[in-house]
Amino acid sequence: PSRLPGFATHQVGVAGAVLDEATGKVLVVQDKNKTKNAWKFPGGLSDPGENIGNTAVREVFEETGIQSEFQSLLSIRQQHNHPGAFGKSDMYIICRLKPLSFDINFCRQECLRCEWMDVAELARTNHTTPITSRVAKLLLYGHREGFDKIDLAVKEIPAVYKGLFYQLYHKELPETYENIC
Amino acid sequence: PSRLPGFATHQVGVAGAVLDEATGKVLVVQDKNKTKNAWKFPGGLSDPGENIGNTAVREVFEETGIQSEFQSLLSIRQQHNHPGAFGKSDMYIICRLKPLSFDINFCRQECLRCEWMDVAELARTNHTTPITSRVAKLLLYGHREGFDKIDLAVKEIPAVYKGLFYQLYHKELPETYENIC
Repeated sequence: PSRLPGFATHQVGVAGAVLDEATGKVLVVQDKNKTKNAWKFPGGLSDPGENIGNTAVREVFEETGIQSEFQSLLSIRQQHNHPGAFGKSDMYIICRLKPLSFDINFCRQECLRCEWMDVAELARTNHTTPITSRVAKLLLYGHREGFDKIDLAVKEIPAVYKGLFYQLYHKELPETYENIC
Repeated sequence: PSRLPGFATHQVGVAGAVLDEATGKVLVVQDKNKTKNAWKFPGGLSDPGENIGNTAVREVFEETGIQSEFQSLLSIRQQHNHPGAFGKSDMYIICRLKPLSFDINFCRQECLRCEWMDVAELARTNHTTPITSRVAKLLLYGHREGFDKIDLAVKEIPAVYKGLFYQLYHKELPETYENIC
């Protein structure tokens, strides 16, 4: 294997699926500059040094005016040769967020439409992208049978390098395994 | 929000946790050039355009001589300002692999030691990194109670852009939700 140092090869995009547990409605947008009017979750590229959850919350606010809070990581997509990625590979991460506000005030430069849609309707409609449809089905499953079925929880862990922390995402670990010794 | 195109901000590293279900043993290495002799999973950086699972299988083979097959994605770590990442952010993904061969022939340039270790022992030992210890506990949970408890399955989906496919990773979706209409 090569002993040369690595270099940045990926851009990281993050989408936020803001689900209101009380009503089963999820926040969706239609992009302005796309050929097909498909409902999708708001999102965008991570700024350098920005945590995944913070990107999701920031992009949701910028696009829709909705304030939200990070809950979990739901899904990861890897794609190569994506037209928007300029030859780089693309990691796209979908997070589950909890709404802290409900009045939509969406960005007219980015979005054509924005609404709270029933998650069961989003899971069924053809007016969406394949990834949004799949994540909607996952959200519906979680909403009906418990979010522990679909969530990757986050755990903050001290790094080997002093003073640094990192976020580790995986399925919740039961306490009996967490405290094994 | 900025309308400028994005650029590559992350390097993506992948580790392979090769677990032999029959024996409960997992493949671990000790790096040669690190200060602390800690057991960890073999792994390394994704080549440009390389799928996550392929990186894991390739790196495991290069470091240990063990052939393996991708099973699932277990965990994701995001870290900023990592000393080895030259100011870039670092995404580190841990996959679960199934061994196809068992005779270790490890790379003496990269590794000091390499062995099949009982996963319960790895979950308990202090001679490891925090991330390895946590993933070992997760593996032990999966091995005892079913890998569906810990696995993110992969699904290949056609992209909006013709002829392209991408890999989407998330918790297995029950058929009743998969086929909702």
